Amino acid sequence: MIIALLTDFGVDDIYDGVMKGVMSRICTGARFIDITHSIEPQNVRQAAFALMSAFRYFPAQTVFLVVVDPGVGSTRRPIAVQAGDYFFVAPDNGVLSYAMHLLKPKRVEAVEIAMKPDAEISNTFHGRDVFAPAAATLASGMGLAQLGRPIEKLMTLPFPELVYSGRELIGEVTHIDRFGNLVTSIGHMRWSDQDKLRLSPVFGDHTEPIPVSALNATAKVGGGTITGVRRTYAEAERGHLLSLVGSTSFLEVSMNQGSAAERLDVEIGDRVVLHVGDIDAAVRD
Amino acid sequence: MIIALLTDFGVDDIYDGVMKGVMSRICTGARFIDITHSIEPQNVRQAAFALMSAFRYFPAQTVFLVVVDPGVGSTRRPIAVQAGDYFFVAPDNGVLSYAMHLLKPKRVEAVEIAMKPDAEISNTFHGRDVFAPAAATLASGMGLAQLGRPIEKLMTLPFPELVYSGRELIGEVTHIDRFGNLVTSIGHMRWSDQDKLRLSPVFGDHTEPIPVSALNATAKVGGGTITGVRRTYAEAERGHLLSLVGSTSFLEVSMNQGSAAERLDVEIGDRVVLHVGDIDAAVRD
Amino acid sequence: MIIALLTDFGVDDIYDGVMKGVMSRICTGARFIDITHSIEPQNVRQAAFALMSAFRYFPAQTVFLVVVDPGVGSTRRPIAVQAGDYFFVAPDNGVLSYAMHLLKPKRVEAVEIAMKPDAEISNTFHGRDVFAPAAATLASGMGLAQLGRPIEKLMTLPFPELVYSGRELIGEVTHIDRFGNLVTSIGHMRWSDQDKLRLSPVFGDHTEPIPVSALNATAKVGGGTITGVRRTYAEAERGHLLSLVGSTSFLEVSMNQGSAAERLDVEIGDRVVLHVGDIDAAVRD
Repeated sequence: MIIALLTDFGVDDIYDGVMKGVMSRICTGARFIDITHSIEPQNVRQAAFALMSAFRYFPAQTVFLVVVDPGVGSTRRPIAVQAGDYFFVAPDNGVLSYAMHLLKPKRVEAVEIAMKPDAEISNTFHGRDVFAPAAATLASGMGLAQLGRPIEKLMTLPFPELVYSGRELIGEVTHIDRFGNLVTSIGHMRWSDQDKLRLSPVFGDHTEPIPVSALNATAKVGGGTITGVRRTYAEAERGHLLSLVGSTSFLEVSMNQGSAAERLDVEIGDRVVLHVGDIDAAVRD
Repeated sequence: MIIALLTDFGVDDIYDGVMKGVMSRICTGARFIDITHSIEPQNVRQAAFALMSAFRYFPAQTVFLVVVDPGVGSTRRPIAVQAGDYFFVAPDNGVLSYAMHLLKPKRVEAVEIAMKPDAEISNTFHGRDVFAPAAATLASGMGLAQLGRPIEKLMTLPFPELVYSGRELIGEVTHIDRFGNLVTSIGHMRWSDQDKLRLSPVFGDHTEPIPVSALNATAKVGGGTITGVRRTYAEAERGHLLSLVGSTSFLEVSMNQGSAAERLDVEIGDRVVLHVGDIDAAVRD
Repeated sequence: MIIALLTDFGVDDIYDGVMKGVMSRICTGARFIDITHSIEPQNVRQAAFALMSAFRYFPAQTVFLVVVDPGVGSTRRPIAVQAGDYFFVAPDNGVLSYAMHLLKPKRVEAVEIAMKPDAEISNTFHGRDVFAPAAATLASGMGLAQLGRPIEKLMTLPFPELVYSGRELIGEVTHIDRFGNLVTSIGHMRWSDQDKLRLSPVFGDHTEPIPVSALNATAKVGGGTITGVRRTYAEAERGHLLSLVGSTSFLEVSMNQGSAAERLDVEIGDRVVLHVGDIDAAVRD
C-alpha cells in the first residue's frame, strides 16, 4: 500500500525518515512516495494547493500523509478522511480543503484521530507520534473507525478568489516552480478547438464555462502583458514569455528556457488578470 | 528488509542513488529509507547526533548505512555492528558512538569488514564499494560473520559535556532544524507532574535524576534568557521564544511560528545554560 | 522491478512525486530509486554525464527514466531504448548518448513512444503523461514493441573533446560535486603498478592506452598545478589540493577535507590539462 507524504519538514533534518521508520514498524509492506517536503514552514495554503494538484495521479487506496501543522500540540484536531478512493491523514487546519473541493461530490467520511492514552506522544512532533501511526494503520487495511470517532465538519481554508466581470478573470499566483513557471488559480482550461479554449472555473462564484480566445486573450501579471495562449513552450522564442495551459489545466505564465518569475519579479499570491479575448475576432483573423 | 541511509552526500550528486543501485543488485527486496543526506561534509559528530536521535524509531533488523567518512581510503577500518535489534555499517570513526551509548547495555558485536581481494574498490567511494555491499549483505539475512573478523574496541567520539553544579546545567546546541529550533544536549526530560519535569542526563558525569521547575527554570543561549518550560509552541505568542521538551526529549529553544536560531543568532556547538529553578517556589506560586 | 529516475525537476515541486504516483498505477510493484533530480534546468549534457556515471551500478532490467526535456511539446521524439541489460526512457535529445557510448558494442534497440490518441497528454509535462507511463509499462515486463515503432538513429550530443599531443591530454571539467571535487573527462584511468597508471581514453580520437606517471604527472585546472596522482585524499595534507582517480575512473582534482572548486574557482566546462609525466624518470627516482 502506498503512503504519499506532503510536509514542510524539508529533507535536511531526520523528521521525514523517522516518520517512515515509525510507519514501517506498523505496516511492514508500506511503500513511500514523497510528494514534497519543501512546503514553506507552516504554509498551510501552499500545501493545500500542492495536494490538490497531485493527489489524483496516485493509485486508488493511496494514503496521503499531510503534515503542515503550525498548531501542533494545541487544540486543533488530528483527522483521518476517506474521500472517493483515497485516504488522507492531516491536522484539521484546512490543508485538505482544496483537494476535498475537487473530489466533490464523492462521499467523504472523517474521524478525529484518538490519542492512545498509553502512547508516548511528543507535544511538538505529531507527525511522528500521531499522524504517521494513523497513516500506517490505514495502509495496513484497517478502516477509519479504528482510528477514532466520526466528525462532521472539517476546517476550510479561504478559497482563492476568482472574479469574473467584463470578460476579465482576476485570480492569483498559487505556485512558482523550479523552472520559474507561474501557476495561477485560473482554470480548468481545456482546448475545445484549434484557436479556442473552454475555461470551467474551479474557484469563485461563476461556474458556467467561459470561452477563451487562444489568439487574443491577454494575461497580466507583475509588469507583464502576454497576448495569446500557446500550446507549448517552443511556440515562444527562447527567453520570451508565454501563457499556456499548465499540466494541471490551470493557466500558467512561463518563459521558454528561462524563468518567468525572475523576469516579472512575481511572488506567490500576486494578482493575475486574464482578459478572455474576442473569440469572433479571432476566428475572423 | 529496510536499509536506512545517513550520509553527507547531499542529493544533488548521483552518489546516493548509485549506492542504492549497488544494494539492489545484492539484496533484491531491499527497501530504502533516507534519514538524511544533508550532514555537513565530513561532520562526523553531527551525523552521530542525527543517528542517535533517529535509530530507535525504525523496525527491528533495520540496517543503518552511515557514511560520513573523511578518512576514506586511509587506514580507518570499515565496520559492521550488531547492537540490540539493529545493524550498523559505517567507517570506524566514532559516528556510531552516541547511538551505541543509548543502546547500552544491549549486547554489541562488531566486525571489521574485509575488502574482497577480487572486488574493484575505489579509493574515494567506499560508500559504494565497501559499505553498501556490506549493508545489503546484512539485509539479505547473512550474519556479521560473513563480512569479516570480530573486533573488540570501536572508536568513540568525545561526548558533549554536560556539567551540573549549583543547580545549573551547562550543555551545547547539537542541532538546528529547518524551523530554526535549537536542539540541545540537555536531556532526557520528561514531565513528572503538572509543573515539574525530571531530567535524567544522557551525557556527563551526573547521572542522578534532577527535578526541573516548569515555571521558573531559565534557559540561556545566545543573548536570550527564556523563563519556564512550555508544553507546546502555542503556549508562546507568535514570534516569541520558548523552551520546551523536544521530540527526542532533549531541551529545545524555539519560537512559535518563527526561527529561534535567527532571532538569537546561534550556531551548532554554542553553549546553553539551564538553571533548573526552584521547585518549591513553583509549587507555592 | 526498479525504475531509476534522473531529472531536472528538483525535489521542491510535486513533479517527481506525481510521476511516481502515475507509475504506481500502471506497475503496482514498481520500486523507485532517485539518481538525482538536481540536474540544472534543461542541462541535457549534465544529465548525460550523470547517467553515464551511474547506470552500470544498477541491476539488470532496471528502467532508467531520464527527463531533461527543453523541447517538451515540440517535435522531438519520445523514445524507449533497450541497450545491454537495461531500459531507458527519455526524450530523443541526446541525453542517452554518453551512456550508449559506454554500452558499446551491446545490442541497442529503440522505439519512438506512440502517444495514445485517447490519453490526455499535457503539452508541458510529458514526464507525467508520456515518459512515466512508458517506463512503468516496461517495468511491468512488457517489451519495447508495446510502446511504439522501431527507429534507427538516435540524437547524439557532442562528446567532450579529449586531445592528446606531446604527452598532454586536454579535457574538461564535467561535474563538480557537493564536496567540491572536480570530475574531468580524462579517463578511464587504472593503476597498473605501484607508480604507474594506464589511461584508456573514453572520449576523443586517441584510443590507445597511455601510461601515466603517478609521481610526476601534472594536472592544470583553474590557476592550479597539481603534481602527482594520489591514491587517497589522506595522502594530501588537510586543505591541500591533489589529483586522484575518481570513483568512476576519471581524473579528479580534489582537496583533502575541503573544496577544490572553491579554492580554484572552477566551473563546469573549464579546461583541464594533464601532462602524463615521465615514467622512466619516475622509476629512477
